[in-house]
Amino acid sequence: MATFYGIGVGVGDPEMITLKAINALKDLDVVILPEAKKDEGSTAYSIAKEYLREDIEELFLEFPMISDVEKKKKIRRANAEKIEEYLEAGKNIGFLTIGDPMTFSTYVYVLEYLSDKYSVKTIPGVSSFVDMASRFNFPLVMGDESLKIISLHGKVDIKKEIENSDNIVFMKVTRSFDDLKAALIATNNMENIILVSNCGKENQEVFFNIENLQKEDVHYFSTLILKKGGINQWKKFIS
Amino acid sequence: MATFYGIGVGVGDPEMITLKAINALKDLDVVILPEAKKDEGSTAYSIAKEYLREDIEELFLEFPMISDVEKKKKIRRANAEKIEEYLEAGKNIGFLTIGDPMTFSTYVYVLEYLSDKYSVKTIPGVSSFVDMASRFNFPLVMGDESLKIISLHGKVDIKKEIENSDNIVFMKVTRSFDDLKAALIATNNMENIILVSNCGKENQEVFFNIENLQKEDVHYFSTLILKKGGINQWKKFIS
Repeated sequence: MATFYGIGVGVGDPEMITLKAINALKDLDVVILPEAKKDEGSTAYSIAKEYLREDIEELFLEFPMISDVEKKKKIRRANAEKIEEYLEAGKNIGFLTIGDPMTFSTYVYVLEYLSDKYSVKTIPGVSSFVDMASRFNFPLVMGDESLKIISLHGKVDIKKEIENSDNIVFMKVTRSFDDLKAALIATNNMENIILVSNCGKENQEVFFNIENLQKEDVHYFSTLILKKGGINQWKKFIS
Repeated sequence: MATFYGIGVGVGDPEMITLKAINALKDLDVVILPEAKKDEGSTAYSIAKEYLREDIEELFLEFPMISDVEKKKKIRRANAEKIEEYLEAGKNIGFLTIGDPMTFSTYVYVLEYLSDKYSVKTIPGVSSFVDMASRFNFPLVMGDESLKIISLHGKVDIKKEIENSDNIVFMKVTRSFDDLKAALIATNNMENIILVSNCGKENQEVFFNIENLQKEDVHYFSTLILKKGGINQWKKFIS
């Protein structure tokens, strides 16, 4: 029976791919590409390419960011149906993700609508914030501390969140940058943060102080990690 | 200059290692092994072995689980000093971890005491709970939901935690299993969980219902994931 694969291919660095992901890529007859990337190509695809069969079939699917829930569901259902056609034809088909397929990824919106009669294999990957901690040599969480991952995409009571966790990863910080700054000041945590924009890329920027940083100066691909136990003791290996 | 490496080698499955980890392993002159594993061997070492130089030097270090803080600090400092001796001699030396080196790992207790004059490279890995979600094909976190990681090693107000997060990974559940059960019942969340013991191993066990499960029946290596949005819709690909 053919298999639907969800494959985490790492954070962007071609070396951050697992052997399991490489073996899954070699097993694919069809690779799914987001419609939006038809021309520009995608990072995930460029990492995967060297492991894919030369005659791999490409399936372009649309995953629009729209607020119309019914329309979104309809598109997702249609995507799942297209994938099922390939599986019915005995073809292994794969969805590539940067980071981990089960952590804030579009992949789950395919799984949600796919019939349970098919075989599914998900290959986990390293998420961007996990990579960020290793890249800068500081712990995400240790001992009996807790870790919370929050996307500032939705409505969040940031102050309350800060009160309730030892370490917090704030993703999509540009969405509520002013609120985030205010909450960090109000809870006396302005010294306990690291903000990284374009982590691992050529235009990477690192900030330990965001007092004078304005919302409009912060790049969309930015993650702020708060360590209430302090970040100073971990700065020593950050070059 | 020699480098101190922290290397995540995956969750136990030899295929779950990254190319970056493999390249780091090949670069090692010395590999650190926990003293406790001197006879039985460690999972991390058995995964790493095929990539290590045949004449690799083994350094056994003690990382005791003791409550005496001063004694613990002293041992950690001594471990860092031993590692520094190898670095001074121009040897690359590596600390292996199962999962991710920056997520609840002993590795950071070496970093903490290592002098900042040395070069440090940390290679991230997939954590056990990240692997668990992929293995059973359910999302850890999606859309504007939040995710919290809690080790029940310390004191935790479980009910409050459940109220404040959409998805929670509870690690070391045997420490407070009765409290965890009570909090899940009190918050009407008994239907929204998956408990996995010995994830990925031969003796793996999966529970969606823990009502009749007693503390003494739960294996030490067990993780419970609560999904307040429900787990039922994701059970379809769990075989």
